[in-house]
Amino acid sequence: MRTAVILCAGRGSRMNASIPKPLVRVAGREILSRTIELLRRHRIERFVIVVNPENKDRIEDLLRREGADYTLVVNERPERENGYSLYLAREHVTDREFVLTMGDHVYSEDFIARALKGKGLIVDDLALYVDRTEATRVLCGKGRVKDIGKGIEKFNGYDTGFFILTRSVFKVAEKLVSEREKVTVSDIVKAGRIRCTFVSGEFWTDVDTREDLERARKELVRASVKGVGDGVVSRLINRKVSLWISERVVDRITPMQATWATFITGLVSALIALFSPQMGGLIYQVSSMLDGVDGEIARASLRTTRFGGWIDSILDRVVDFAFLSALALWLGPGAGFLPWIFLALFGTLMVSYTTERFRGSYCEDAYEAVRPLRYLVGKRDERVFLVMVFCLLGWIEALFIVLALITNLRVILTVYLVWSHKGKYEQALR
Amino acid sequence: MRTAVILCAGRGSRMNASIPKPLVRVAGREILSRTIELLRRHRIERFVIVVNPENKDRIEDLLRREGADYTLVVNERPERENGYSLYLAREHVTDREFVLTMGDHVYSEDFIARALKGKGLIVDDLALYVDRTEATRVLCGKGRVKDIGKGIEKFNGYDTGFFILTRSVFKVAEKLVSEREKVTVSDIVKAGRIRCTFVSGEFWTDVDTREDLERARKELVRASVKGVGDGVVSRLINRKVSLWISERVVDRITPMQATWATFITGLVSALIALFSPQMGGLIYQVSSMLDGVDGEIARASLRTTRFGGWIDSILDRVVDFAFLSALALWLGPGAGFLPWIFLALFGTLMVSYTTERFRGSYCEDAYEAVRPLRYLVGKRDERVFLVMVFCLLGWIEALFIVLALITNLRVILTVYLVWSHKGKYEQALR
Repeated sequence: MRTAVILCAGRGSRMNASIPKPLVRVAGREILSRTIELLRRHRIERFVIVVNPENKDRIEDLLRREGADYTLVVNERPERENGYSLYLAREHVTDREFVLTMGDHVYSEDFIARALKGKGLIVDDLALYVDRTEATRVLCGKGRVKDIGKGIEKFNGYDTGFFILTRSVFKVAEKLVSEREKVTVSDIVKAGRIRCTFVSGEFWTDVDTREDLERARKELVRASVKGVGDGVVSRLINRKVSLWISERVVDRITPMQATWATFITGLVSALIALFSPQMGGLIYQVSSMLDGVDGEIARASLRTTRFGGWIDSILDRVVDFAFLSALALWLGPGAGFLPWIFLALFGTLMVSYTTERFRGSYCEDAYEAVRPLRYLVGKRDERVFLVMVFCLLGWIEALFIVLALITNLRVILTVYLVWSHKGKYEQALR
Repeated sequence: MRTAVILCAGRGSRMNASIPKPLVRVAGREILSRTIELLRRHRIERFVIVVNPENKDRIEDLLRREGADYTLVVNERPERENGYSLYLAREHVTDREFVLTMGDHVYSEDFIARALKGKGLIVDDLALYVDRTEATRVLCGKGRVKDIGKGIEKFNGYDTGFFILTRSVFKVAEKLVSEREKVTVSDIVKAGRIRCTFVSGEFWTDVDTREDLERARKELVRASVKGVGDGVVSRLINRKVSLWISERVVDRITPMQATWATFITGLVSALIALFSPQMGGLIYQVSSMLDGVDGEIARASLRTTRFGGWIDSILDRVVDFAFLSALALWLGPGAGFLPWIFLALFGTLMVSYTTERFRGSYCEDAYEAVRPLRYLVGKRDERVFLVMVFCLLGWIEALFIVLALITNLRVILTVYLVWSHKGKYEQALR
């Protein structure tokens, strides 16, 4: 299965008639562009896009920008409904099996992954994220669609607008198109007694109103939290703040802009700590709360890059080192205290080094591969919070001693845990 | 092709009759174990091992230790020669195509990789690493073996003892075995007009004398230098020293023992630097020369592990930080000089962090992916050497300033180079 047919010939949305719905941005990415990107991640690389004469040019612009392998089919008579659009795509689908979906539906990554393993119409019995009074109902029995429609009384799920079809569906479409003027995909599904597969509870929605749009943005941002490396402070405080921000900025700024904003906040905190550890510590914690935003909006808008992950990780180290150095300079330590400062600086960097270097060797996230690592305290969010608390209390010497102990102990435990897990992961490097 | 037949029924070696030749250790690994490991790396996982009654038990011990999927065939009459041994393997080879090789031959990784792409007898026209007066000569013409033997006058290559054969060879073997008492593989090759493929100049040898053994060890250790991350000091000095040592210890110590010995030398150098930067600097450079040994003997004995690479990298950071911290403590700096020390410590760690973290993001070596990185000065071998020189001259303050500048400049250039290459490597993280 390499081909997807995406129906984009419907008329503008209720919220803004001037933008075709497939081009509405949700969480930093146009709906159509999101669907294409997600399908590509599952090796569906050819797209047959059915458009109407009005939105043709703008949709083609987007397809070109995406570098997609696409065929554009213009439905000159969109009033004949989306079943007619599907019918028009028939000559451009050469695979026996193909995906059919709607250009105005937003799907999560998990939905797509599960849906692609199904057959026929993908039905959701829960439909947690849509206005169920507006949704199309489906009665699915013995693995086939028995009935479908907005008004039907007996039903056990909702039409997700996502299908895995075989080319035989075009015969059904052809027959219906020859018989009547308006043909919907629902008509074809019903007439063809298409198979159906339940995929329950994953995020998907069509976007019809401003409320739909906001709900979708919120859900996509929330689903973007990776979180395996999150410490307790992150879970309780930082993520909440960063998600609140991400929801509000995801359509406005790029992940890289968020990375730099966080970095600059961190550098400013170090600069201020030279004069006032209290104020510096507070801003340091602010930068730590901002730190999640870049990753969240990158994942929500499907724009994560390797470079982004790399530079983000490096800039975090710069901020940590700069802040602790500034504190040490504020302290103006005697030679006797210097070893504690060195140990704290070293341990702070090495907590990250040991974890990140693990991926260099194993090509796998340390927290995924060696699960007990998750329960070690001393992750960045926890360290920054600790630093802030000690700064507010004015206990700067104590801070260095505590940091020196916690971080280096954590490094030693990391080495021990990786060593004790190595039997499970070890094999000669090929 | 999943099966290899390895002939191990020959009599003991000239050098030490008490150890069967396949069990002689060369560069930290028994000859047979090396061949099995290398073939496994190319997905050849089934082994048919032909032994004689005397060495049967000891060879089976090794096969068990290796966890190999093996079938043992005992040649009760090894005096009938190795062609008879091959004949005995016939019932255990089910694949149409299979590898045939000799239990007393040592091959390099590159030889095996190229040989496996060939057909028939693998012939080497150069035979750079064997005693050519003793080697079996081959005349290869129109892709077939025309003549083979030690004494033949007309020849264009040497028999490497490595073959890619089809099962049809057993018919030829059967016929010869029924006709005469002694049958060599050469007899079968000649009678069957087996195909031949040239693989020139790679390392392979049979091991017959103590000199063969030492030459083989040396070559395997030399071939083990990875070197993409080597700076100029490493190429001119450190590698020469570490190879000299590796050749001598590869059969005696494990890679992990070498790692720890290097680490302890490094820590000792830091300890001494607290009192004498001169002496400390010298020992620091010694630890840097030792630093190549663990990797060299690990690769030469095919025992590289992910954990080994990981821990080695971490211990290097500990030594670097410990040494510079010790120097700083020796200096007992005033508050005004502290920023230089912090910058030098930070830059030194971050040179490694940026490079190693690259692999975490890209699953590829930074020096392979972003080639200009190779030409940046400030790699570890160069830094350590610089530290030693400044220590010997007693220029400790100048050292911190130079290190602070070089390392942080290198970090900035690394970020720039990775950024400017990102178009080439970037893609959404799947």
